[in-house]
Amino acid sequence: MDVQRIPFAELKRWGFQPVTGNLVHDSGRFFSVEGVRARYHGKEPVSWTQPILNQPEVGFLGILVKEFDGVLHCLMQAKAEPGNAEGLQLSPTVQATRSNYTGVHEGSAVRYLEYFTDPAVGRPLIDVLQSEHGAWFYRKRNRNLVVEAVVDVPEHEDYCWLTLGQVRRLLGVSDLVNMDTRTVLACLPLALAGGGAGGEGTAGDGRRGEGAAALTASMAQDVPAAHTLPELLRWFNGIRASSEVSVEPVPLAEVDHWVREADEIRHTSGRHFAIVAVSVEAGNREVTGWTQPLLSPRGTGVVAFLAKRIDGILHVLAHAHPEPGYVDVIELGPTVHCVPDDHAGLPPQRRPNFLDAVLTARPEQILYDAVQPEEGGRFYRALSRYVVVETDDDPVVPDDYRWMTVGQLVTLLQHSNYCNIQARSLIACLQSVW
Amino acid sequence: MDVQRIPFAELKRWGFQPVTGNLVHDSGRFFSVEGVRARYHGKEPVSWTQPILNQPEVGFLGILVKEFDGVLHCLMQAKAEPGNAEGLQLSPTVQATRSNYTGVHEGSAVRYLEYFTDPAVGRPLIDVLQSEHGAWFYRKRNRNLVVEAVVDVPEHEDYCWLTLGQVRRLLGVSDLVNMDTRTVLACLPLALAGGGAGGEGTAGDGRRGEGAAALTASMAQDVPAAHTLPELLRWFNGIRASSEVSVEPVPLAEVDHWVREADEIRHTSGRHFAIVAVSVEAGNREVTGWTQPLLSPRGTGVVAFLAKRIDGILHVLAHAHPEPGYVDVIELGPTVHCVPDDHAGLPPQRRPNFLDAVLTARPEQILYDAVQPEEGGRFYRALSRYVVVETDDDPVVPDDYRWMTVGQLVTLLQHSNYCNIQARSLIACLQSVW
Repeated sequence: MDVQRIPFAELKRWGFQPVTGNLVHDSGRFFSVEGVRARYHGKEPVSWTQPILNQPEVGFLGILVKEFDGVLHCLMQAKAEPGNAEGLQLSPTVQATRSNYTGVHEGSAVRYLEYFTDPAVGRPLIDVLQSEHGAWFYRKRNRNLVVEAVVDVPEHEDYCWLTLGQVRRLLGVSDLVNMDTRTVLACLPLALAGGGAGGEGTAGDGRRGEGAAALTASMAQDVPAAHTLPELLRWFNGIRASSEVSVEPVPLAEVDHWVREADEIRHTSGRHFAIVAVSVEAGNREVTGWTQPLLSPRGTGVVAFLAKRIDGILHVLAHAHPEPGYVDVIELGPTVHCVPDDHAGLPPQRRPNFLDAVLTARPEQILYDAVQPEEGGRFYRALSRYVVVETDDDPVVPDDYRWMTVGQLVTLLQHSNYCNIQARSLIACLQSVW
Repeated sequence: MDVQRIPFAELKRWGFQPVTGNLVHDSGRFFSVEGVRARYHGKEPVSWTQPILNQPEVGFLGILVKEFDGVLHCLMQAKAEPGNAEGLQLSPTVQATRSNYTGVHEGSAVRYLEYFTDPAVGRPLIDVLQSEHGAWFYRKRNRNLVVEAVVDVPEHEDYCWLTLGQVRRLLGVSDLVNMDTRTVLACLPLALAGGGAGGEGTAGDGRRGEGAAALTASMAQDVPAAHTLPELLRWFNGIRASSEVSVEPVPLAEVDHWVREADEIRHTSGRHFAIVAVSVEAGNREVTGWTQPLLSPRGTGVVAFLAKRIDGILHVLAHAHPEPGYVDVIELGPTVHCVPDDHAGLPPQRRPNFLDAVLTARPEQILYDAVQPEEGGRFYRALSRYVVVETDDDPVVPDDYRWMTVGQLVTLLQHSNYCNIQARSLIACLQSVW
């Protein structure tokens, strides 16, 4: 796949609407770049406008699984997306927008889709609508599916059966497993994820000794945790009910502090992200050449869980917070999610909570550490450092944070609107350690 | 409580905004009457505008429970609301808007609220955000809570400890148990609802013989059902993902086919509902006298589940459908939900699905049948006939309907945005039979 940055004027079938300034496709489909105004009321009211991607269609992310010799395998796809830094990534069996599978862009049919939709050939294990990046996407959601094939599945050169344990170990490698694979894997409960893997990937390889046992216990869904699930829901719904957040779409032309230049729309500070345009030539896609806008984040983010053993069970510190693009205002995210460069030189009390605990962690505290990509179909070279840091300290926990086991998070993310994409991604990464 | 219909001109602190025509309180709080435009795309596109209540605050519906002599009791409140047809109704321990408990209307403190918010005195069992009437409310939600008191609870003359079995049996009486009690009770899983009740209310009173066993099995959460939960989620998310529904707020002044007269806003057909105003005098409320708008439905609705034994387990036929006020577009509702008078005289193929099967049921098919009220704080004398009808037929099931056990519905409604208020209410009613 050959990808070149181009000026907006060279986009084909994409253009800025005269009055709104929104960047749209002339079919009205795919996605558009619009504006959004967010207002957080409460003690310290804040209000801002920003560009945001609007893609009202529900995307489709499905992994087809099947047992071979008693071991669960996943049919993984080697797929390139224009925003990928390194070309191919390990992707779900099906990764499609509705525009893909209804043929809006006149491409070929989506391979293996029928296993996900036809009960005669696929038995559903997981099907849940999950959010996307709430700071970049307005109310975007994807169906996360795992379906077990109940018939033989024809092979194809772009696809390969890997065991769940193999996929997990590859999550230990930077920039190889795509975001869509990570979010789908995160939705697998332990009973499926462990048992189905036929013993592969279970704890006990000796790494970190009792740490492995603490992690295994954290993955289970019925261990005594620091807080019961009803207690966590009381806390979470209390924050949701007391939040006064309003979000409304606005025309891109009315977004303040952003400037449109020939080849990018950027914030006047140079921070946050830019909207750019690319031209793509590809050999094996539904369509072989096209142009499109992409969102290009500035800087490499840090996405981190602070972890702690409580009564021998590993807990992670989840953060309930609003983002303008969530359907339901507040979701649970990782302990830390920011671009550290944006906060360089600030005094400690003004730096993001727990960022310094993550950045100054000693090597033996680090359970997981790799650079992982965000979705390359919409984001241009978006990379974040995903980290899990174990602490022995007993830090002060602000009221919008709670210690939870991984199993509790996985229980919640069987349903919509609980866990954000960064938290889900990091849960999948933690599975690579387990 | 003395309630009188008044012209809009006699409302105090409420008025129509000059440009939008929205009916608002001068504090900007409580709720407002605005407009909404809904568009359903797809095979038969429809589009309409209508008035709708907008109350962005999350309401608080909490039942405090406690064991006495090993039997779980609920602290129920005898409470009048201006829209109630018959005065007092059996209401949750706490039934409050945030305006109530933050003192916006300068009333007294909300009694027993501290048990729901202070972990030292109350242990949470259930805490879930649920939708309200999606045809009448724009994205309104209530927290449904059940909290177990871990300390002694002082008594008050407006409140009474009833066993869960007693509350259930009272659900067999028309117009006595309010809507808020019903939705909270519906969220109780069988393990809590049955076991905790200390044997009261369990099946085996001989009524309907094996029918009782079929119902008990339906309430359980781990029996073999017609469809597995992942199969039902695949169906439900498939409908959600393929729905093209857009809903946007519009000024009340821009709503078509509705006219504002001196004492009501009504549809030109005389159907649907009207917005009216009342003056209220009350002795024992936070505020002793006030005026407010209410939504007054036309006609008595029918809310019905068609039920059927499949392999000895009672299933109900749930209907996935959109309403403009849902946060997430589609929820599961009962098999039938309509005002039969609106469809009188239509040929069979144009009448609502399954309505005639409900209206023509023989007495021995009827598992439950009572007239129940909707919320009297916002709805004026809103009564619906709640019915569960068992069929031996094998009716053709359209794709937006599915047979589910009650236990499957209760599993889903532990989380937000699955089951609408009518379905939850009817589940609570079915518990009165069980």
